[in-house]
Amino acid sequence: MNNDPAQFKIEFFLSAAQCNAEGELPLPTLLQYLIDIATSHANSLNFGYSRLKESDSAWVLNRVAVEMESFPAINQKFTLSTWVVSTNRLYSDRAFRFDDAEGNIIGYAISRWAAINVTTRRPMNLLELFPEGLPDTGISVPITSFSKIRHPEEEGTSSPLIFKYADIDCNRHVNSTRYVEHLLNCFSVHFFDTHSISRFEIVFHDEAFFGDHVDVISHVTDTEATVWIALDKKVLTISRFTFLKKE
Amino acid sequence: MNNDPAQFKIEFFLSAAQCNAEGELPLPTLLQYLIDIATSHANSLNFGYSRLKESDSAWVLNRVAVEMESFPAINQKFTLSTWVVSTNRLYSDRAFRFDDAEGNIIGYAISRWAAINVTTRRPMNLLELFPEGLPDTGISVPITSFSKIRHPEEEGTSSPLIFKYADIDCNRHVNSTRYVEHLLNCFSVHFFDTHSISRFEIVFHDEAFFGDHVDVISHVTDTEATVWIALDKKVLTISRFTFLKKE
Repeated sequence: MNNDPAQFKIEFFLSAAQCNAEGELPLPTLLQYLIDIATSHANSLNFGYSRLKESDSAWVLNRVAVEMESFPAINQKFTLSTWVVSTNRLYSDRAFRFDDAEGNIIGYAISRWAAINVTTRRPMNLLELFPEGLPDTGISVPITSFSKIRHPEEEGTSSPLIFKYADIDCNRHVNSTRYVEHLLNCFSVHFFDTHSISRFEIVFHDEAFFGDHVDVISHVTDTEATVWIALDKKVLTISRFTFLKKE
Repeated sequence: MNNDPAQFKIEFFLSAAQCNAEGELPLPTLLQYLIDIATSHANSLNFGYSRLKESDSAWVLNRVAVEMESFPAINQKFTLSTWVVSTNRLYSDRAFRFDDAEGNIIGYAISRWAAINVTTRRPMNLLELFPEGLPDTGISVPITSFSKIRHPEEEGTSSPLIFKYADIDCNRHVNSTRYVEHLLNCFSVHFFDTHSISRFEIVFHDEAFFGDHVDVISHVTDTEATVWIALDKKVLTISRFTFLKKE
């Protein structure tokens, strides 16, 4: 895998200061690492943000699904690998694999990316943007594909939230990883003492901005949760967690 | 500096996904890097957390002051170096230096660490814990030393805050870097379009826990701000920002 430029690998070390309450890699940081390694890989093969900037367009992360057997733990090394699976006019699908320090596979992720025109926010045709093609490998990962996440019919618990300074990224939108932090903040620290996240799936529908007043709405059971963020009636992002009871 | 074990150096790359609204290294991440590199350095010379664990004690960060001429910017490499300055019975002072990719010094930081008994939370005598001595270099950095941060006499602006899941670290306290995020959230994204942080100083007085209801209180002028977090009348942390007007 090392010598194939279509696949890209980075080794990480999880410091104590980065860990969550469980002493593990926090889900928002995991998402940030997926975005970072995807960006580095695309830049290294000249299909990254700088290339798209030439056409006044940019990559946008549409959705992610992660399935972890275990999360990287405190003071441990782990390796994250990534490759492009397939590309069509509208989307490029990218896969990821997590290996622990002993080389055991501990998780997989899939992600779907679109390119949009930065002025009109309209989708661009990837096959026209990249006439030479992207480095599609056709290699999928053994996890459940993207699903349609619907709001449960029962009412959820709603908490108001205002996006603040630390939520905003360099594009002046709310950072995708901050969406995930606010989703997690629906749970108590005790919940994750008895439940581990075996699957997490998120769809990014719309952008939010500094000062936006939104609601974080959650519907949680012992085995799964649907959590979404809404601005008035518009769903900005919706996610589904699948839990395993800890022994 | 590379070959002297008393000094320790790590190279970083600032990805887009990590940047703040200004496209720069966020202050909370900067603080996390200071803690991470201090931890790595101490571990590498056997005066880190594992060593203190043998005496049922742990390092605690007491205060930090940072002065930056400029912050590391998007898609740039930078280097962070650290060394121990001096140690007495109660405190060990550690310094840091930031260099940009061209080797220009862009900032310095100083930090003060104590060791506490993890059960009694009482301070431990560093000279007894480390009879062989710490790798004190006596090398200080050219920034203003720690100052006494007092509340301004005028009333500040107060915002209520409840510490949530994503605020909690692996010791089940509120993470020091999350304190800094909540301090920054007193400012608008527009404030930092016209003001840059030239100095930031913070004192950590007391620990906070999941579910604590606190107030974030700020007193902001055009050139400086004092911001603190209080649980009832108890100040958990207090900070002072010094600003430069951007041209």
